[in-house]
Amino acid sequence: MKVLVVNVNTTASMTEAIAARARQAAAPGTEIEALTPYFGPASVEGNTESYLSAVAVMDRVLAHPGPYDAVVQAGFGEHGREGLQELLDVPVIDITEAAAHLAMLLGRTYSVITTLDRAVPQIEDRLTLAGLLGRCASVRASGLSVLELDHDPDRAVQEIAEQAVRAVHDDKAEVIVLGCGGMAGLEEKVRARAGVPVIDGTAAAVKLAESLTGLGLSTSKIRTYAPPRPKDVTAWPLGAHLGLWPQREAGPR
Amino acid sequence: MKVLVVNVNTTASMTEAIAARARQAAAPGTEIEALTPYFGPASVEGNTESYLSAVAVMDRVLAHPGPYDAVVQAGFGEHGREGLQELLDVPVIDITEAAAHLAMLLGRTYSVITTLDRAVPQIEDRLTLAGLLGRCASVRASGLSVLELDHDPDRAVQEIAEQAVRAVHDDKAEVIVLGCGGMAGLEEKVRARAGVPVIDGTAAAVKLAESLTGLGLSTSKIRTYAPPRPKDVTAWPLGAHLGLWPQREAGPR
Amino acid sequence: MKVLVVNVNTTASMTEAIAARARQAAAPGTEIEALTPYFGPASVEGNTESYLSAVAVMDRVLAHPGPYDAVVQAGFGEHGREGLQELLDVPVIDITEAAAHLAMLLGRTYSVITTLDRAVPQIEDRLTLAGLLGRCASVRASGLSVLELDHDPDRAVQEIAEQAVRAVHDDKAEVIVLGCGGMAGLEEKVRARAGVPVIDGTAAAVKLAESLTGLGLSTSKIRTYAPPRPKDVTAWPLGAHLGLWPQREAGPR
Amino acid sequence: MKVLVVNVNTTASMTEAIAARARQAAAPGTEIEALTPYFGPASVEGNTESYLSAVAVMDRVLAHPGPYDAVVQAGFGEHGREGLQELLDVPVIDITEAAAHLAMLLGRTYSVITTLDRAVPQIEDRLTLAGLLGRCASVRASGLSVLELDHDPDRAVQEIAEQAVRAVHDDKAEVIVLGCGGMAGLEEKVRARAGVPVIDGTAAAVKLAESLTGLGLSTSKIRTYAPPRPKDVTAWPLGAHLGLWPQREAGPR
Amino acid sequence: MKVLVVNVNTTASMTEAIAARARQAAAPGTEIEALTPYFGPASVEGNTESYLSAVAVMDRVLAHPGPYDAVVQAGFGEHGREGLQELLDVPVIDITEAAAHLAMLLGRTYSVITTLDRAVPQIEDRLTLAGLLGRCASVRASGLSVLELDHDPDRAVQEIAEQAVRAVHDDKAEVIVLGCGGMAGLEEKVRARAGVPVIDGTAAAVKLAESLTGLGLSTSKIRTYAPPRPKDVTAWPLGAHLGLWPQREAGPR
Amino acid sequence: MKVLVVNVNTTASMTEAIAARARQAAAPGTEIEALTPYFGPASVEGNTESYLSAVAVMDRVLAHPGPYDAVVQAGFGEHGREGLQELLDVPVIDITEAAAHLAMLLGRTYSVITTLDRAVPQIEDRLTLAGLLGRCASVRASGLSVLELDHDPDRAVQEIAEQAVRAVHDDKAEVIVLGCGGMAGLEEKVRARAGVPVIDGTAAAVKLAESLTGLGLSTSKIRTYAPPRPKDVTAWPLGAHLGLWPQREAGPR
Repeated sequence: MKVLVVNVNTTASMTEAIAARARQAAAPGTEIEALTPYFGPASVEGNTESYLSAVAVMDRVLAHPGPYDAVVQAGFGEHGREGLQELLDVPVIDITEAAAHLAMLLGRTYSVITTLDRAVPQIEDRLTLAGLLGRCASVRASGLSVLELDHDPDRAVQEIAEQAVRAVHDDKAEVIVLGCGGMAGLEEKVRARAGVPVIDGTAAAVKLAESLTGLGLSTSKIRTYAPPRPKDVTAWPLGAHLGLWPQREAGPR
Repeated sequence: MKVLVVNVNTTASMTEAIAARARQAAAPGTEIEALTPYFGPASVEGNTESYLSAVAVMDRVLAHPGPYDAVVQAGFGEHGREGLQELLDVPVIDITEAAAHLAMLLGRTYSVITTLDRAVPQIEDRLTLAGLLGRCASVRASGLSVLELDHDPDRAVQEIAEQAVRAVHDDKAEVIVLGCGGMAGLEEKVRARAGVPVIDGTAAAVKLAESLTGLGLSTSKIRTYAPPRPKDVTAWPLGAHLGLWPQREAGPR
Repeated sequence: MKVLVVNVNTTASMTEAIAARARQAAAPGTEIEALTPYFGPASVEGNTESYLSAVAVMDRVLAHPGPYDAVVQAGFGEHGREGLQELLDVPVIDITEAAAHLAMLLGRTYSVITTLDRAVPQIEDRLTLAGLLGRCASVRASGLSVLELDHDPDRAVQEIAEQAVRAVHDDKAEVIVLGCGGMAGLEEKVRARAGVPVIDGTAAAVKLAESLTGLGLSTSKIRTYAPPRPKDVTAWPLGAHLGLWPQREAGPR
Repeated sequence: MKVLVVNVNTTASMTEAIAARARQAAAPGTEIEALTPYFGPASVEGNTESYLSAVAVMDRVLAHPGPYDAVVQAGFGEHGREGLQELLDVPVIDITEAAAHLAMLLGRTYSVITTLDRAVPQIEDRLTLAGLLGRCASVRASGLSVLELDHDPDRAVQEIAEQAVRAVHDDKAEVIVLGCGGMAGLEEKVRARAGVPVIDGTAAAVKLAESLTGLGLSTSKIRTYAPPRPKDVTAWPLGAHLGLWPQREAGPR
Repeated sequence: MKVLVVNVNTTASMTEAIAARARQAAAPGTEIEALTPYFGPASVEGNTESYLSAVAVMDRVLAHPGPYDAVVQAGFGEHGREGLQELLDVPVIDITEAAAHLAMLLGRTYSVITTLDRAVPQIEDRLTLAGLLGRCASVRASGLSVLELDHDPDRAVQEIAEQAVRAVHDDKAEVIVLGCGGMAGLEEKVRARAGVPVIDGTAAAVKLAESLTGLGLSTSKIRTYAPPRPKDVTAWPLGAHLGLWPQREAGPR
Repeated sequence: MKVLVVNVNTTASMTEAIAARARQAAAPGTEIEALTPYFGPASVEGNTESYLSAVAVMDRVLAHPGPYDAVVQAGFGEHGREGLQELLDVPVIDITEAAAHLAMLLGRTYSVITTLDRAVPQIEDRLTLAGLLGRCASVRASGLSVLELDHDPDRAVQEIAEQAVRAVHDDKAEVIVLGCGGMAGLEEKVRARAGVPVIDGTAAAVKLAESLTGLGLSTSKIRTYAPPRPKDVTAWPLGAHLGLWPQREAGPR
């Protein structure tokens, strides 16, 4: 099976790191193809960027000629998963939700350690809408921006681990979720400090994509995620109209 | 004062209808300028279109040279309000929330009558995130698409009123909210049938924009709606890069 | 239009301060008439006093010959709004709720800074019943009684601002609501300290009264706020039976 | 021990019926004294009347010279219990809450069958504030007014039982609570029809009053129910100022 | 009337302490018979032990030849009450819930002070399922194990009182619940330190058992607590098959 | 890897059916070993049986000499998962939760179709405690007992499918979960009727066990699921004391 793992920002080095983590998690026989959007922000930190990213991710997936068996949206706390679910017939897994699902199997509560404080409300909102906030003990910010995280992994581990320890002690978290796609690979170091299981969303999403595909399950199309209705849509897909698509090939729909 | 009222779809006739309702609601001295996005769907029905619309609305507002005192986002149950709040220093009012706020002042519960069944979950989600779902007795679909609504107002009144009556009797709604920007102007006819106050979101939003402006209040910038951080954003604003902006003039930020 | 602004206690100087704030908030053409109950406590701090005040406010409004277009109940966290809504055909706005409604338009969360700790549960209860507690980050007490607030505004600003700062930092509030009718006029000083928008309930209520009246909307009479049923009521209105009404004139109903 | 059972309306026959049910429930050694307020409505149906009743009940209890060991407020879904708790050092039991507490010990869910539809929101609100709504399957109206109930008990049983049966079958209620002080004595007939335990609030409250007294427990005075602060209160107690108290004797505080 | 009070562990000294507290709380005419399970853990601290205890308690009650009028399950936060309710026709009262019910009549909020931190989630879960968590301000651990509690009551009072004081000050608890069957008898000492009412669950449960019995009420058998269906059950009752029952006498069913 | 799949009842034919479904779901390289408890009920329908089953499942797993990599508890809505998590170092997956987790990845809401009406509250309670009830549209009963299900699969499909269709239409479920371990294998037939994805809990649990094992994750031991404390436990493990264990071999701990 083939899983598309889509970064939500345009920073290629981050796409590569996410791809590496996805491949590490993948079962034998699972092929990972990592995609970077054609437009949008170099990192996603806030609602304006998150909405833009949501559209860029949909655009990027539509540009892919297929076939593939599942899509992982590798942005933590970002918008857009529901849009992809409407567009595609294969399962779509958001890493925020994937991490929360697995965390809830391992402990009674979990905490998310994310980047900047401004990301906290977005993550809480995404977990609320997914029906997964009830067992979330806290969402904590490490104070590091997404790009700082990418550039200084040692400091990142330190700041994230500190918040993880506080989540365990003060908020009674029993599992830690790494709250940024760019934190992939830091699990073991944080686990060593916090003393509880640590989950990376990309890895979790790959396993859940394999699980659904293995059971022959895909998105319900009966209501919320029914395909878009036929209608005039000006300048869509945007990447094609912007001349950013490698060639004007149609996506899976 | 001047209020920008932004339609969420690209159908100009709908922008005009919304503008007319906004002007009717406006106090003397309030100027209404209605905008249509440069790209996106002819009507917004579903998440894919809603995310695209969110970006198109931000793009359209950025294209406006200003000055203006408040922005009304005239799409019911659509994404994007948080993004505009980050981008702007003036108040931003979503008509979904505006209608709910006023409804809660008039009755213990309210119901929303919207277009298609697939819009119901989106509206519930937006009200959930806004903290306004608790007093919502139900969100009901009339079964009419946004464009049917535009083309056959008589049938629209009939279908909407029928659901309004059922909301009052079966769901114990005490106020009815018209759940689509394109339903503006149907209030009186629905009220006559349902026997309870009926609220149009655009009208409500204009009054709330006037209220906030009159009190010198605007969006809190301390956390969730802080301005986007400076960074590389490829092809943004999209409309400018697509050559859809009338001239490459900068918006208010 | 004319708005009755009813103080909930019998302290005339507080009625005047509230009236001044209301007039400052009012649009041109909005006349403010401020009323003081004929009986009840000099300040309302606790449930016994709040229930008595609820009845005294209804009594005072009934004593008014009218006409008027809306009523603002200017007590923060007090009982009684539902009773007025049953008695009157014009909109009734409680300042607790008015402030919360506007706060939710400006930030993702808000905190209320009130007087004594014992007022906190009452305010939480009122927000709960109004369906507005979900986005309330905290209700904090300044430790000042209502009358101390009236007598020492400088100390009041200092204590309120301190709690506002803690609400923003510790509770992640993005907007501050002044949680006592007698705090009217302190907004700017608190805003300067806390760095977020600050809302006075009386001002908010006046704007919402103007909004509803401007849209021709009033209380739904279909269920919860239907008029009282005809029946024997001993000694009602109390103020008339106590000889406190200036003359035994009938109110609007 | 002596328990004051206070009717919330001024209808003496209803006070008598409540007293009879209370005496039937009382353990040997428990004396019941039933009180009728000196002013207020002949029946309490709606918020205006409920607020007036809350004050009349406080007034009536204050007029009692004491001593007594507990107070039962015998109005279903009415305001005022918190006020009494502030005024008194002995336990105060509201029959709405008493019935819900016992119901939750007998079944996983309970439903309340009350009088008019307009009483439903008030009962829901009181249960919400008491933290007891979670296991409430429904609050249903029989369509009978309080006074009709008093005058035609046979029809009352029939209408109440019909709603009880529907609550059990449709709402999955496992226990029925009689939602009006005036329904005391109908338990056995409703139980025979509905096939589940049926609880009268007055009886429940008497037993809970005995329980608390037997354990030497009374209201916590540390915060919410602290005594009113000393201050000027105009015309309070109202009944004394109205000349309705039999003699101007002071109550227990 | 006769109440069976069943300890959840096999430590006879703890059964005696619970029995003493139950007898102290009982009304004249209420006979208390205390039972110790035939198998299971010496103290119940965690889910494995709690599930085993639930079965051992059911087994122990089945071994009793009867008659009796009510059963009190004297383990705080333990599983099993629902099973007993299915097996018996008389009321079954869990001390966790009993304490919470009475606490909610005395204050707006309550806190539970229990033994070890690992007991906290179980207690929260039991209160959640009983619909009683809403007014619970906190569940706090004293850090003492059940057996330490039994062996060093002086230290127990000190640790429990310290947490009670913090619950009142930090969590705004207005009532304290002793969160372990083995804390019976410490109420007065904790109350003296914390300044709020203190409730022991066993005492509360005895009074509620008396209340229900006095009103002729027992468990609803219509759905959740219907008797077990006839079927093959291997090795049940376990105590009989283990040869632990004093004689192979049948229980009440 | 090896997964133990533990039936919750003593009916061997049901263990076989569950094992078959588990093997069908398992990835190459995953070995399934199915276990039947040594004691307990032939089917689990109600709390008494569920508690007994919880203990029997723990007992049965302890009797297994190991090694194994994960345990699946194959009872829908039953107690016990937390106990196993305390006892074991490998992941423990309950099929109720597993099915809900996967369902939430496929649709905005899901409904559970179970056996008898009396099972509904238990399932709701388990989903509540797992933090998974929020997106559950309904739990519906087919009216078939567990053993009828086993004996008449054709009728089972019909009754289950009928409730599934009603869940989709009336409750707006977008995914159906088969709410009994014994329904394994009916997915495709129910899906054909209901038109939405259908999930069997055992299959879901096997994939989640593989996912967790593949990522090297296991239960957090820091608080709720810490190992039982050393202490005297009379007659434990029960099966060994009953002489039901094949030989008195020690389990993994």
